[in-house]
Amino acid sequence: MEKRTEITERVRALRAYMHEKGLRAFIFPSTDPHCGEYVPEHWMTRQWISGFDGSAGTAVVTLEDAALWTDSRYFIAAADQLAGTPFRLMKDGLEETPTITEWIDRTIKSSKSKIQLSTSVGINGWVNMMADVRCMMEKAEKAGLQLYIGNDPADELWKNRPDIPTNPIEIHPLEYAGETCQSKIARLREALQQAGAEGTVVSQLDEIAWLLNLRGTDVHCNPVFVAYVLLTQKEITLFTNPEKITPEVAAYLKENNIGTLPYADITKALKAYGAETMLLDPNTSNWNLLASLPESCKVVEHSSLIAPMKAVKNEAEIRGFRQAMIRDGVAMVKFLRWLKQTMTDYQLSTVNSQLSTPNCQLSTVNCQLPTEMDVDRKLTALRAEQPLFRDISFDTIAAYGPHGAIVHYEATPETDVKLEPKGLLLLDSGAQYQDGTTDITRTIALGPLTEEEKLDYTLVLKGHIRLALTKFPKGACGTQIDALARYAMWQHGINFLHGTGHGVGSYLNVHEGPHQIRMNYKPAPLLPGMTVTNEPGIYRAGKHGVRIENTMIVQEYKKTEFGEFLGLEALTLCPIDTAPIIWGMMLPDEIAYLNAYHKRVYEELSPFLADNDKDWLNVQCSMINVQ
Amino acid sequence: MEKRTEITERVRALRAYMHEKGLRAFIFPSTDPHCGEYVPEHWMTRQWISGFDGSAGTAVVTLEDAALWTDSRYFIAAADQLAGTPFRLMKDGLEETPTITEWIDRTIKSSKSKIQLSTSVGINGWVNMMADVRCMMEKAEKAGLQLYIGNDPADELWKNRPDIPTNPIEIHPLEYAGETCQSKIARLREALQQAGAEGTVVSQLDEIAWLLNLRGTDVHCNPVFVAYVLLTQKEITLFTNPEKITPEVAAYLKENNIGTLPYADITKALKAYGAETMLLDPNTSNWNLLASLPESCKVVEHSSLIAPMKAVKNEAEIRGFRQAMIRDGVAMVKFLRWLKQTMTDYQLSTVNSQLSTPNCQLSTVNCQLPTEMDVDRKLTALRAEQPLFRDISFDTIAAYGPHGAIVHYEATPETDVKLEPKGLLLLDSGAQYQDGTTDITRTIALGPLTEEEKLDYTLVLKGHIRLALTKFPKGACGTQIDALARYAMWQHGINFLHGTGHGVGSYLNVHEGPHQIRMNYKPAPLLPGMTVTNEPGIYRAGKHGVRIENTMIVQEYKKTEFGEFLGLEALTLCPIDTAPIIWGMMLPDEIAYLNAYHKRVYEELSPFLADNDKDWLNVQCSMINVQ
Repeated sequence: MEKRTEITERVRALRAYMHEKGLRAFIFPSTDPHCGEYVPEHWMTRQWISGFDGSAGTAVVTLEDAALWTDSRYFIAAADQLAGTPFRLMKDGLEETPTITEWIDRTIKSSKSKIQLSTSVGINGWVNMMADVRCMMEKAEKAGLQLYIGNDPADELWKNRPDIPTNPIEIHPLEYAGETCQSKIARLREALQQAGAEGTVVSQLDEIAWLLNLRGTDVHCNPVFVAYVLLTQKEITLFTNPEKITPEVAAYLKENNIGTLPYADITKALKAYGAETMLLDPNTSNWNLLASLPESCKVVEHSSLIAPMKAVKNEAEIRGFRQAMIRDGVAMVKFLRWLKQTMTDYQLSTVNSQLSTPNCQLSTVNCQLPTEMDVDRKLTALRAEQPLFRDISFDTIAAYGPHGAIVHYEATPETDVKLEPKGLLLLDSGAQYQDGTTDITRTIALGPLTEEEKLDYTLVLKGHIRLALTKFPKGACGTQIDALARYAMWQHGINFLHGTGHGVGSYLNVHEGPHQIRMNYKPAPLLPGMTVTNEPGIYRAGKHGVRIENTMIVQEYKKTEFGEFLGLEALTLCPIDTAPIIWGMMLPDEIAYLNAYHKRVYEELSPFLADNDKDWLNVQCSMINVQ
Repeated sequence: MEKRTEITERVRALRAYMHEKGLRAFIFPSTDPHCGEYVPEHWMTRQWISGFDGSAGTAVVTLEDAALWTDSRYFIAAADQLAGTPFRLMKDGLEETPTITEWIDRTIKSSKSKIQLSTSVGINGWVNMMADVRCMMEKAEKAGLQLYIGNDPADELWKNRPDIPTNPIEIHPLEYAGETCQSKIARLREALQQAGAEGTVVSQLDEIAWLLNLRGTDVHCNPVFVAYVLLTQKEITLFTNPEKITPEVAAYLKENNIGTLPYADITKALKAYGAETMLLDPNTSNWNLLASLPESCKVVEHSSLIAPMKAVKNEAEIRGFRQAMIRDGVAMVKFLRWLKQTMTDYQLSTVNSQLSTPNCQLSTVNCQLPTEMDVDRKLTALRAEQPLFRDISFDTIAAYGPHGAIVHYEATPETDVKLEPKGLLLLDSGAQYQDGTTDITRTIALGPLTEEEKLDYTLVLKGHIRLALTKFPKGACGTQIDALARYAMWQHGINFLHGTGHGVGSYLNVHEGPHQIRMNYKPAPLLPGMTVTNEPGIYRAGKHGVRIENTMIVQEYKKTEFGEFLGLEALTLCPIDTAPIIWGMMLPDEIAYLNAYHKRVYEELSPFLADNDKDWLNVQCSMINVQ
């Protein structure tokens, strides 16, 4: 059956389901039950019902109409994918675009149906978080609609639905974890007691992986596995597909007194929950967890207790990060030399052909320009050669020229372009090594640059260095130091709208909290042992993008009569392109930082490099002496 | 009667009153019904009951005991003032000090009374704000106590109580106000409508003064008068003592359709309030306003609607500020020249006497060193000579040497010290002129300085200048730029614990909101036309304090493809002492700022100075040329 006909069929079946349940509308968000950044195929119900495969979007089906909301990144792709389906495209962020509630309300009011139809709006309580459901309830009430919170209609309607992944779970060795699961469980129990709760459900997959020192391969780029954990002061149970539990893992769980039950049994277990109190994080716990609890159980709503523990890395984790950064740096150096060499070779071959000297000494292959996707493939291949490499940590952003201005750009066969020997390539990438996760952005001059490209590059670098240099009082949160990364560009009337930094997991998710560095207020303090990225950027639509990112670690700086002070140290080891820098704009302490950083990069990486790479790195890391 | 006997008598009378009302304890805070920074004598009930006259403190009387909580600033004074009274001193901030609730609870539990006494704790609902009362209710409930919210016991018990001030109200001319009260009232009515409320009670005195373009002299340093305003979409009534209303003001009020009723009638008016909704700011509205409303009235709790209007100065107000700053700068220059001259004269006379040359050419008077209080008197006298001077805007902080490290120091006859020709004098002062309010801090070298004094001075100056130089995106709040004032000192492991900046009223209170620049998150954005101080500091206990403060104004900087950007311009015009600066630590743009600022100070002030002051200023403002 043709895809578009299939979609129409699915919508028809859904409407029959809705009629049966007395529902007027059904809303499909992009989320899964574990509030993850990447959603396993099993939960891609928005894509299943609408055909739209972008990472962000909400599909709504009413008895008489259907629509899909997505943001400007996906306007073109969504229009294409929705054509010929029952869905109309709703462009989020445009003034004329109605909200979902407004649209449902309008659709109902303009209905020509002669019988009085329901005004109930259905959602799947498994993929909507508690806080979101409350917000939806409020909006629905204001519009005179009722919210019906049930199960997943795709359970009944999605034929050949992909299973919840059954990939085997792995043990994360203590050598890398640095703390036993027993110790972590004990700390969590103590924190629960302090928060006044007897138990909790852990539903975020990276929190489960951290707590139990287990890893998996169920989710794209995230080394986690699908599960819930129910923990009380006395017991701890892992709810996951039994097929995933290898004999080794079974023995490990038994040894640590961790019970196991099938994934779907979480509902039954919660219905039978005997303690008086249960802690849930309303922002990351789905509604059906809450709804499954007995009425007698008092829910303590509290931000995740695990996030602040997981964010502070222990010595073994920090050691692992440092090792992983060396391997990642080696891969990056090999890649950068290849890239710069390829661009130079191409220029030479062009010159040669212009001079009509037919004997180009370079092979034809070498003279060809790589595309953005080639860049991704080459870099990933170089990383995959490194010991302990497991996966990339997010989809590579290899964005040339104007693509660099699209903050979440990912090259596809439709958008892929050849690099040219001019302008800037923005390259944001990272890997999962068993001993650490990496996240690095370099912006690389491929040849001559415009004055604006140089200015923007220099301002971003100044921001990156100023933040790297700053010391701050212990207790300060990221919002309280964020301006230091923006000061230089603000003086030129330039700003960027994303955060300046996020935590990075230890062989876990590349984005983790609770701390962030950003303009929006995030109160979680930066504490010694936390990883945090330093990634200011400038994006000129239709022209170019610049971002320079190192993953840093928060460290103790000094204690004085004024209290304790902290600072940041770069974990990432990779040269920063100096070609685009306008040296006259750089302050002496900025140049000194760059020199010291490059000295360290060379010292730490060169023992692991072959001579040609080492020589190239030596040039990249040479001292700058600017008067 | 001796003071301490009087206090004992008052406590005895209060306990009789408590018995009558069935109360076990009564709490006296430092506040008044209008949530003001300075409290008129009439409401100094905490001082009346306890004898302690510091600006911050809470007195608690139970049937069997009495105690007073205050902070470290007042430990010595309070111990002295409470000796011989029934009050024991509770030192706030020390670990062993119980909270008020803990102490009341403990007092009750250790009671040896054989009859069952009440566990009700009384407070005066007129001087406790809604939000505070709720907080107290919660604490009381947790401790098994009941909160009884009534009227002021001093109404019955305080003999010869000072009246609520009856000083005449004055009209604030449109020339300085820049907007008619009609226009302000219309804007407030619109804002009320948008907030979903039909009426409001304005109880903060500076908000009433701003709204009606009236001023008064009821409160120390604040040009306001005691009143309430009840405003609905149809009516507006000023509740104030009729004696205060001069024929001129009466005519003005009539002309603007503003009704008047006696101050005490606010209760009656609220009881008869006919509209369905009433907006109150829970942080600044006292409990009894809320309690007076009919039960049928729905209270809309909302932060002040007037504060954000009042904070953005109009053209006339900005013009007034600039004029007032010139007069204030002239007074400051005359003062600074006098001070520096006096210190030099003294040194000369010392040298002369050391050389045993008895013919000191300077008069004996000139050779004497001034004290901190002399400094205050001299400066206030010079300001008072200026046209439109009305009052000082807060109690002068003239803090020499170690006193500079006491952030809220005010010299008293007991603490007053003579200045010496060495070290630093921290001088934070300001005035009320009819066209603007000023707030300025200079730290002045009186002679040789230690290296630490120079370092601290230079770091504070660097912070002050960095903040003055910064541009920032429109919509940013003070917390988002605060780090720029602290970066330089953070690098040395130094920080200060007060805010970096606050709004300044237009011939109104020297401290106003809603915006601030500080580490603590204050979401109110900085907007063009807002005044804000720039006052970083460093305080070394037992050694010295440094603070450098200019009042600034937020201005438009530029519009770019990245949005609108704002910046700050100094309103304050007064040279910054360059003697303590370690020039090698100053960046070129910091020196350029200082030079440009001094050039402007000289240009704007010199036309109003006599030759000797002008020449002195010229030297202070001379260009610095540092390689």
